Amino acid sequence: MTSAGVASLKNQTVIAVDAMGGDDAPEMVIDGLAIACDRHPDTRFLVFGDEARVVPLLEKHPKLKAACTMVPTEDVVAGDAKPSVAVRSGRKSSLWLAIQAVKNGDAAGVVSAGNTGAFMAMSKLVLRTLPGIDRPAIATIVPTQRGDNVVLDLGANSECDANNLVEFAIMGDAFARTVLGLEKPLVGIMNLGSEEGKGTDSEREAADTLKNSPLPINFHGFVEGDDLSKGTVDVIVTDGFTGNVMLKTLEGTTKLYSHFLRQAYGSSWLAKLGYLLSRPALNRLKSRVDPRRYNGAMLLGLNGVAVKSHGGTDAFGFACAVSVAQDMISQGINDLIRSEIEKLSLPGKGASRAVAG
Amino acid sequence: MTSAGVASLKNQTVIAVDAMGGDDAPEMVIDGLAIACDRHPDTRFLVFGDEARVVPLLEKHPKLKAACTMVPTEDVVAGDAKPSVAVRSGRKSSLWLAIQAVKNGDAAGVVSAGNTGAFMAMSKLVLRTLPGIDRPAIATIVPTQRGDNVVLDLGANSECDANNLVEFAIMGDAFARTVLGLEKPLVGIMNLGSEEGKGTDSEREAADTLKNSPLPINFHGFVEGDDLSKGTVDVIVTDGFTGNVMLKTLEGTTKLYSHFLRQAYGSSWLAKLGYLLSRPALNRLKSRVDPRRYNGAMLLGLNGVAVKSHGGTDAFGFACAVSVAQDMISQGINDLIRSEIEKLSLPGKGASRAVAG
Repeated sequence: MTSAGVASLKNQTVIAVDAMGGDDAPEMVIDGLAIACDRHPDTRFLVFGDEARVVPLLEKHPKLKAACTMVPTEDVVAGDAKPSVAVRSGRKSSLWLAIQAVKNGDAAGVVSAGNTGAFMAMSKLVLRTLPGIDRPAIATIVPTQRGDNVVLDLGANSECDANNLVEFAIMGDAFARTVLGLEKPLVGIMNLGSEEGKGTDSEREAADTLKNSPLPINFHGFVEGDDLSKGTVDVIVTDGFTGNVMLKTLEGTTKLYSHFLRQAYGSSWLAKLGYLLSRPALNRLKSRVDPRRYNGAMLLGLNGVAVKSHGGTDAFGFACAVSVAQDMISQGINDLIRSEIEKLSLPGKGASRAVAG
Repeated sequence: MTSAGVASLKNQTVIAVDAMGGDDAPEMVIDGLAIACDRHPDTRFLVFGDEARVVPLLEKHPKLKAACTMVPTEDVVAGDAKPSVAVRSGRKSSLWLAIQAVKNGDAAGVVSAGNTGAFMAMSKLVLRTLPGIDRPAIATIVPTQRGDNVVLDLGANSECDANNLVEFAIMGDAFARTVLGLEKPLVGIMNLGSEEGKGTDSEREAADTLKNSPLPINFHGFVEGDDLSKGTVDVIVTDGFTGNVMLKTLEGTTKLYSHFLRQAYGSSWLAKLGYLLSRPALNRLKSRVDPRRYNGAMLLGLNGVAVKSHGGTDAFGFACAVSVAQDMISQGINDLIRSEIEKLSLPGKGASRAVAG
């Protein structure tokens, strides 16, 4: 329960946790860790935060307490802080120090529900990108008609060239193979039409590279916006601008539909009675698309595992984000990305990068 | 009922119709025109298509027949034809000749449910863009929590600079004022965050121009993907790549939700009974978000009104697309766009185009 003994934890999976990030931190974070601790009894947590607030919360969960090492920190990165400011002035924050623990080898991964931009900026600076990766990406899992999809990038990079998209494909493929357990995930590039020749140079050149590369990637070609819900492929690759708008459109449409449904059910006593009878089935549907189950935006392409939980999630949602980090660590996602990137850069194998780096 | 007498129709609203475009053409088109004819008794239709197939269909609708002038055409643009090929070899097609009727002054607008890419390419070539408009855009209406939204561009332009986005804002604003009847529509630019400084140069420069221009545009600033369903603004401006992915994501999510709901209702006899009781309310919801009511993609920025109906729509949907064209013509949308563009180019008024044309 003190910062001593951190180094001795190296033989177990250790996850660094920013206890102060998120709307209801640190309560939500510690309650979430208690759930995660039940799911992953062999994992230890380095908990970074305000000791006076966090320790009393840990007292309520004796099993979790035994699995935690408290690392007292003084500062907190505000949810609305500019990433550039946070990077300069937040070096004593729980977020910075949690990321630093991964850099130092004290933890294999870091989870935070705090400021996304600051988390990404700090992680890039502290952990650096994997060899051969130009830019890290933010990925997430989305439920579809056929199963789960991995989508990236969600906003780390507004503009992407063909090389970036190819790297995202490699990272998304590695995620789908290690964490989703798919043997040959189908990878598609988002475009405004599925025919060859559509889109900008970035999409076309990235598609050419993926088609002609020695990578064992199962490349489908271009997909369109509605392929996300159809589950046409397992991995959807796009620039951060499009990915961000796409995911938020999906979230907004889901909320709009729920809003209209509630209105419909409330519009007459017959409709209300109908709702009561259908409720068990509707609740099963709700739990199937429960956004908490899909909580966790993965920062891919870094030397270390970094998972961003939604700031407004609850303990169950935070535990899901911890599980994602745990899976990424235990399945060795970064080793896989590293070896794939090496294949791409091997000379004389027909592997050419789409755009000169 | 012959091609003679076309010129004498000039004092009425005349709409040119491609009878051969769409999955169920010409039957769906003529049945749709019959509905449109009831809604707009003062409108005349120039019907371009295969006389042998169209005339017998018109015989079934005597009132419509009296409002139509048949213009026999020999060719049809295939739904999967490449736009560049259609433009070269489709000069005798019903689509080309219907557009040509607008150019010749025989009609004020054209409606087709045919090949979108060919329709856009032919319209650009035949009608040309309005003075001061660099690129036309495709716009549509989307239902939101607060009312209807206009969204553009939906795919006419994969990449857009700041000038293009400013022109889209002017065209979307004019559409919302004339067709939706909003006095001061709120206009937003789609971005991956609502804070200033987010996005690419195009979004930032376009926002600066709209903030500092003498245009009477009610500019809200940046919006995000979920603002589409929330109805945060009335007009959403974006590049054609993002707009296309966004709209298709919205359509796909709606379908996914319906799919999950059907599964839930079918999962037990209790849920089925609940569905039966709620059905009237659910049907009202369904009619509220009926995609046929929102059928019609407007090709804005051309010398003439051009509306693309969904290829897979039915007669009711086609009639809605005709109504949109009718509204655009009678409300003088292009006169409004013309006068706004002039304001933007007036020298010495602080109006500078964001990017040198």
